[in-house]
Amino acid sequence: MARIGIVGSSGRMGHAIADAIKELGEEHAGGADRGDDIAALAAKSDALVDFSSPDALGATLDAVVAAGIPLLIGTTGLTADNHAAIDAAAKSIPVLQTGNTSLGVTMLAALVREAAARLGDDWDIEIVEMHHRNKVDAPSGTAILLGEAAADGRGIDLSGNTESGRDGQTGARAQGAIGFAALRGGTVAGEHSVILAGEQERITLSHSAENRAIFARGAVKGALWLIGKPAGRYTMPDVLGL
Amino acid sequence: MARIGIVGSSGRMGHAIADAIKELGEEHAGGADRGDDIAALAAKSDALVDFSSPDALGATLDAVVAAGIPLLIGTTGLTADNHAAIDAAAKSIPVLQTGNTSLGVTMLAALVREAAARLGDDWDIEIVEMHHRNKVDAPSGTAILLGEAAADGRGIDLSGNTESGRDGQTGARAQGAIGFAALRGGTVAGEHSVILAGEQERITLSHSAENRAIFARGAVKGALWLIGKPAGRYTMPDVLGL
Amino acid sequence: MARIGIVGSSGRMGHAIADAIKELGEEHAGGADRGDDIAALAAKSDALVDFSSPDALGATLDAVVAAGIPLLIGTTGLTADNHAAIDAAAKSIPVLQTGNTSLGVTMLAALVREAAARLGDDWDIEIVEMHHRNKVDAPSGTAILLGEAAADGRGIDLSGNTESGRDGQTGARAQGAIGFAALRGGTVAGEHSVILAGEQERITLSHSAENRAIFARGAVKGALWLIGKPAGRYTMPDVLGL
Amino acid sequence: MARIGIVGSSGRMGHAIADAIKELGEEHAGGADRGDDIAALAAKSDALVDFSSPDALGATLDAVVAAGIPLLIGTTGLTADNHAAIDAAAKSIPVLQTGNTSLGVTMLAALVREAAARLGDDWDIEIVEMHHRNKVDAPSGTAILLGEAAADGRGIDLSGNTESGRDGQTGARAQGAIGFAALRGGTVAGEHSVILAGEQERITLSHSAENRAIFARGAVKGALWLIGKPAGRYTMPDVLGL
Repeated sequence: MARIGIVGSSGRMGHAIADAIKELGEEHAGGADRGDDIAALAAKSDALVDFSSPDALGATLDAVVAAGIPLLIGTTGLTADNHAAIDAAAKSIPVLQTGNTSLGVTMLAALVREAAARLGDDWDIEIVEMHHRNKVDAPSGTAILLGEAAADGRGIDLSGNTESGRDGQTGARAQGAIGFAALRGGTVAGEHSVILAGEQERITLSHSAENRAIFARGAVKGALWLIGKPAGRYTMPDVLGL
Repeated sequence: MARIGIVGSSGRMGHAIADAIKELGEEHAGGADRGDDIAALAAKSDALVDFSSPDALGATLDAVVAAGIPLLIGTTGLTADNHAAIDAAAKSIPVLQTGNTSLGVTMLAALVREAAARLGDDWDIEIVEMHHRNKVDAPSGTAILLGEAAADGRGIDLSGNTESGRDGQTGARAQGAIGFAALRGGTVAGEHSVILAGEQERITLSHSAENRAIFARGAVKGALWLIGKPAGRYTMPDVLGL
Repeated sequence: MARIGIVGSSGRMGHAIADAIKELGEEHAGGADRGDDIAALAAKSDALVDFSSPDALGATLDAVVAAGIPLLIGTTGLTADNHAAIDAAAKSIPVLQTGNTSLGVTMLAALVREAAARLGDDWDIEIVEMHHRNKVDAPSGTAILLGEAAADGRGIDLSGNTESGRDGQTGARAQGAIGFAALRGGTVAGEHSVILAGEQERITLSHSAENRAIFARGAVKGALWLIGKPAGRYTMPDVLGL
Repeated sequence: MARIGIVGSSGRMGHAIADAIKELGEEHAGGADRGDDIAALAAKSDALVDFSSPDALGATLDAVVAAGIPLLIGTTGLTADNHAAIDAAAKSIPVLQTGNTSLGVTMLAALVREAAARLGDDWDIEIVEMHHRNKVDAPSGTAILLGEAAADGRGIDLSGNTESGRDGQTGARAQGAIGFAALRGGTVAGEHSVILAGEQERITLSHSAENRAIFARGAVKGALWLIGKPAGRYTMPDVLGL
């Protein structure tokens, strides 16, 4: 049974991570928020999970380096300085930083990359996502992550190769474009489909989240996987052996 | 066995209608195009189907009125004058004019109207369609037809109540809006889904066309249904008894 | 704000109903279980919801009749005697008894009945459902309810007109049959699709539940709708005005 | 422009392959059926495609070996002797024998294998397929091919690890089982979905065929790919570089 500590424990993700630790049968080593003693938390943990804020990351990195334990970072909005600090810490401990901790989405992105690489750009790629009615931006971050996987598989940049929000006289689809469409409604936690449409056949690769607990579970699984690994910077695909 | 004549017989729809007549076990009475003798065609037909052009419609109407046989009109881009002429003809013969001859789409629109009427506008409505890569406009005419059915069910106008082509900082979904999204790729003949997304549950009503033959088949079925009906102007929902 | 009392309040549905009452902004009048004073609960409620057991139903019916308030019954496994008692009570109060309190499923069943009635039996009907890995029977009760709606629309009995669990040398599909297939896996709360497959086109009517809270919410909405109605026996379709 | 000859040219697949050769802009070198001079056809072809019968295969192999050109074999029902003869021919020419020439299905199977390998058997796998109303067996050969890919990814045999045709009191799902369900209706050319259902999230990997032309197109693409390859026995995944 591993002891997992939570930085940013009073936030929504902090609570979800505490639930996931329990559900997975591991030990919740404790939580910390801004101003709390993260070094003390690290000292009694086998790994930390941080979903707090960019300006609190420095203290967390210092604590895990001092304790010699791994860190999984799910905090978003990181700066270049944050990334430099993560790189420095990764010289002495294993660190995994990611914007998406879902194992299912991680798997899907790998499949999308592979399909896009093999099928060639006469298979048109469309990405459609649905989220709850209160989401304020489109397409979703996960849709863009999937689009980047598709572009990467094709050996192109996503930027400059997208069609998003078709409406009106659009003209025919551009060869090689990656299309995006966003649906909003109800309480949908998150659904993403990547469609590869060829001549008279189609492949559709989809992910459906029943709720947001999957992000917490994936974060805890990532932290567990880091325990015992050599120092270095890791990714969610590493957790799945991709 | 009914004798069906085709006006606009050399066009793509004309050929498809000839195939559908054969497939349905009826008799192909002959075809006519611009300049041909439509009165002669009407004289040997039990009904005509017209998929030609707005400026040819007058001659067809004269011919069916003279012959006293029904007419199904699938020609698009009709003018106000065309509609007045249709109304006049409908005083002596049964006429069905429509922009969509698919029985499946006609059925779906009726179901969408009913669902929208019963569920109330706390169920968000989204319409997503996919067509082949060469379609140049969005959303499709069928998607708009379905949106109008939803708006009608709710007792609102579709105009002024849509969200189409979401992209970027959209803000939260407007209460009561009907959303549209368009996917393009491959050789897809036409797929439409109407999603009603409520609190933690969703209803999805979809139509999928394997190819465009369904429009020809629906046109022939409509023409067959008109035979023996009283003079008047009919709609595709009438064919299904809706 | 209506006061809703819960019979069977300590069961899983009892707790879910308490949550739904709160979420819908109504007043939770209290709960009762076997042996508790249901008459006292009824006296301080505007309506009762009963998800307890068949042998406890008599006491609940006595209490609501005495108090002159409506009752929604979601208890399953009712006997003929239970139904006779419900009919007797419905002479003085409004009662709604149902095996499925989801408003979305109720709506879907009405749409399926309508589509089956209009499209004719050259449109093959297939019903596929998915539930979590621990469900022990197939097809689901909701799938059967949808099959009955389809059969009713066609004017046939479901019994004797089904194909379920195809495997091996099945032979061609029987004309007019209603097919069932069951998927099991993960933690899926419940998904149902009714497919009407015609010549080169298909209509699919689906319902997806994110979790089981929808049954509790529908039960409370049903109870609220009953308040002020004349004595009689009602159904979930009545709640939607179907 | 490559010259492609067809053995079994008068069958349905033979005609479809002739269409595909034309559509792909290659040269149709000619066709042969039982009793025709296959050596003469091989002499004027850059590759042959054979969709004939097992007992005609020997003559085709002799012809392509003599001409030193590649062969794609789509004939089904091959015997052990057929396979031995193919192995012998593959010492001097490139040969590709397969039961499924769709590039999309080939791609999907590779993705299924990869997902099954990475996600572990706490993700339940279900395979559901839909075909037209006249299909007489279930599950489809393609569904079984996908099931074998999933089993292979997990390192188990498919045989002994399936649940097919659930109906009645099934009990809970067996851990590690691969489930199959078959839908039948209308004129559906072929749809397959592989669902991996985990804790509160799901991945669905699907293929949809608009018609059977995809099998002919994949066969021709396979034959084109074989031209210029070293002698040996190849598979459809090789064509995609998998």
